[in-house]
Amino acid sequence: MADPTASEALSRLVHRFRAALGERAVISDPVELATYSCDGLTHYTATPGLVVLPETTEQVQEVVRGCAELGVPYVARGSGTGLSGGALPRADGVLVVTTRMRRIIEIDIPNQRAVVEPGVINLEVTRAAAPHGFYYAPDPSSQQVCSIGGNVAENSGGAHCLKYGFTVHHVLGLEIVTPDGEVVWLGGKTPDSPGYDLAGVFVGSEGTLGIVTKIVVRLLRAPQVVRTLLAGFRSTDEAGGAVSAIIGAGVVPAAIEMMDALAIEAAEASVHCDYPRGAGAVLIVELDGPSADVAQQFAEVERHCREHGAFEVRVAADDVERAEIWKGRKSAFAAVGRISPDYLVQDGVIPRTALPEVLRDIAELSARSGVRVANVFHAGDGNLHPLVLFDESVPGQGERAEEVSGAILDLCIRHGGSITGEHGVGVDKAKFMPRMFTSEDLDTMQLVRCAFDPAGICNPGKVFPTPRLCGEVPGKRKGVHPLVEAGRAELF
Amino acid sequence: MADPTASEALSRLVHRFRAALGERAVISDPVELATYSCDGLTHYTATPGLVVLPETTEQVQEVVRGCAELGVPYVARGSGTGLSGGALPRADGVLVVTTRMRRIIEIDIPNQRAVVEPGVINLEVTRAAAPHGFYYAPDPSSQQVCSIGGNVAENSGGAHCLKYGFTVHHVLGLEIVTPDGEVVWLGGKTPDSPGYDLAGVFVGSEGTLGIVTKIVVRLLRAPQVVRTLLAGFRSTDEAGGAVSAIIGAGVVPAAIEMMDALAIEAAEASVHCDYPRGAGAVLIVELDGPSADVAQQFAEVERHCREHGAFEVRVAADDVERAEIWKGRKSAFAAVGRISPDYLVQDGVIPRTALPEVLRDIAELSARSGVRVANVFHAGDGNLHPLVLFDESVPGQGERAEEVSGAILDLCIRHGGSITGEHGVGVDKAKFMPRMFTSEDLDTMQLVRCAFDPAGICNPGKVFPTPRLCGEVPGKRKGVHPLVEAGRAELF
Repeated sequence: MADPTASEALSRLVHRFRAALGERAVISDPVELATYSCDGLTHYTATPGLVVLPETTEQVQEVVRGCAELGVPYVARGSGTGLSGGALPRADGVLVVTTRMRRIIEIDIPNQRAVVEPGVINLEVTRAAAPHGFYYAPDPSSQQVCSIGGNVAENSGGAHCLKYGFTVHHVLGLEIVTPDGEVVWLGGKTPDSPGYDLAGVFVGSEGTLGIVTKIVVRLLRAPQVVRTLLAGFRSTDEAGGAVSAIIGAGVVPAAIEMMDALAIEAAEASVHCDYPRGAGAVLIVELDGPSADVAQQFAEVERHCREHGAFEVRVAADDVERAEIWKGRKSAFAAVGRISPDYLVQDGVIPRTALPEVLRDIAELSARSGVRVANVFHAGDGNLHPLVLFDESVPGQGERAEEVSGAILDLCIRHGGSITGEHGVGVDKAKFMPRMFTSEDLDTMQLVRCAFDPAGICNPGKVFPTPRLCGEVPGKRKGVHPLVEAGRAELF
Repeated sequence: MADPTASEALSRLVHRFRAALGERAVISDPVELATYSCDGLTHYTATPGLVVLPETTEQVQEVVRGCAELGVPYVARGSGTGLSGGALPRADGVLVVTTRMRRIIEIDIPNQRAVVEPGVINLEVTRAAAPHGFYYAPDPSSQQVCSIGGNVAENSGGAHCLKYGFTVHHVLGLEIVTPDGEVVWLGGKTPDSPGYDLAGVFVGSEGTLGIVTKIVVRLLRAPQVVRTLLAGFRSTDEAGGAVSAIIGAGVVPAAIEMMDALAIEAAEASVHCDYPRGAGAVLIVELDGPSADVAQQFAEVERHCREHGAFEVRVAADDVERAEIWKGRKSAFAAVGRISPDYLVQDGVIPRTALPEVLRDIAELSARSGVRVANVFHAGDGNLHPLVLFDESVPGQGERAEEVSGAILDLCIRHGGSITGEHGVGVDKAKFMPRMFTSEDLDTMQLVRCAFDPAGICNPGKVFPTPRLCGEVPGKRKGVHPLVEAGRAELF
């Protein structure tokens, strides 16, 4: 903390926040602060200047107002499982941790919705709804630990978003504290609220437009049956062919996941998932819905897999076998640690039809650079998760891995895709934004950010590639006739 | 046009636009202008100062730049079928009519999407996709004439949004011309674009944030089968009970429509739809999907109808009979003209569980005021369309009808619902916005509007209740520490 004025502002806030939130809600001890120095993206770190743990909307409001008055930047954080560094703290700022805001306020089964606080764990919503036969659909791999507030910030997806959509499709309304400390509702409890869909723009805004304090989510009826199969193929080309055939036949599985040989190897080394031996790729296909429908479609999926070269197809007979099939996939990211000392998790999107070509390009990139890439992905919606392996202790490998990882994003863009499917931009991908958007596109986004946060203290440094003052965003007034300035705008 | 400077600005624009867009693309003849004086909400009228009919994005850009330079307000209009006056022109402004922007640019079946221009008619998208077995899901009753651009502006729904969602759920990306004349892409061709979801906020912004020039929409596979039934009940209470039972059983019909006795009477008088005699209410329930699934659920729906008092259930045997059943419903709004010289179409939302109570309250309101109300609605998602009948030639009746219509919205709000389900706010409901939103909520929306359109010339006078200058929207800078002003914001 080089800046003495920043340091002074923080110590004033410590006193103010202790008085308002209580001693135990404010952390200023350096050792404790260090435990908050990164989220799931561990290669960016910064020890926060101060951590607060509010329990109510009013306490969040008090924190935001304090920060706004002194011009101190702040970052909101849920469980800290994000993979793009969206909750990376600031040494000169406050980290607002929502883990104590954990109440499930309302479960309204007849109207199929729930109202929860941001610190509530994703899976807890489903647990609360399950006795009534309902569940909360978005299911990131981290759903046992990640928070709904973080899901809102990142517009989190999961294996089942092919059929069910992202977090934004399951949020009806949000109570937020705006960067000037007002408590505002965006959206509400009905599906289409009048006025601008600001709940929609807030979801996925990565903490840059305010802090969410209550979330109204949709609950879905649990499907009558869920059936899962695992198919082993000789190559990703064959597996990709099966994916195209399944989707092309009009089947919408709840999930279609693909893993390539290197990802399978990692999973075997870690959790001994016993996937088909010699497989160059596996597909996990899950169908859910009414039993008659699922039975018919399941037979069709099996047939497409076999016709496209599956040499082994295993159908889960019960929930235990189903969990066995998923175990390899769900552990894949962490498992890569067994076959490589270090790795980067990439996240990009391509049109589904470009899958075989992009996979070949990635293989070629890997061969040319000597950097190993394991592929795990949501094949149904073209959301790739390449794992780029390296050894930090070998000079130059980290840089080469970064290069390959970036080149994969370029591939995605070149094929009409995008630089992130579900992990967000955060600090990690801000630099890639200009490859995908024109400066006019980015300026338009900045205008919205500046409307909410003209002082630029709400999660600064994230999402946007060029740090600059809001006053520098090209004014939308340029070329306006003097008549407007002189008062014609009263027509508005 | 009282203001001589406004008049002068318009005549300068006539010359400029004729030179840029061609003679035939600019209408300034008063008689021709009068034909554009209202949209589907016919009791608000204003003759536009000028009408332009651009054919390309560049021409729209030229129009917007011309207006911005001279501070002339403008309003975009598609087919003009909107029911809240969102395309009501301004006497001192330009009406930008998109009916010549009618190209279907791309139909990409493997990736299930299409790119269209804003003037394309809703049903044309389905017609273009149908040979491939696909369709465009949002289906407002006006789908044979309404434009996709207008659907985007109003976030249009339709009978099938219970199962398939609104326009916003089917738009992936938008090319727009911003109020300062820049061409910008919001969203793209992939489901979850990085950065803010500005496509989401643009959809439903009722023409206040810019003019859309290209739309990327999702295409859905046409369902294997569609089955439709008509059930006659003695009362809306009975029919409401059936709706709750169907939804409660976990069935998600493609549509559940209800009409009460007065709406049925109107439809009979107009299109002789031959609905069950003596019915106090009818339900139209449609299921679609894989045949096995539909057959099973259809039997369940029929059983729920009978158990809740349906004295007659008709099942459509083929497409002709299906069209017969829908004929009464689809003609209902216009049909009311047969039983009443004048009527208002209201549009409100309530939680589905409040349906019986709200219907009783509306009946009581009608009895107390002597104003007849016919009810037609999307029962599955609680979207009411009360038709408030009156005779303009009887002094005081128009005012009483307005009062009853407004009181119905109050009922909706009191039951936790909303003042519009799918018709938008426009000019018609701007005054009701403060009943639903706090001033902080509305100020937050205004901030976004002002970010896009600080001069307030892009469809002014719509959506927001209080006309005011953007500079009057409470600044988000209040209370900011001088440090920020002095440059700390470079941290941003």
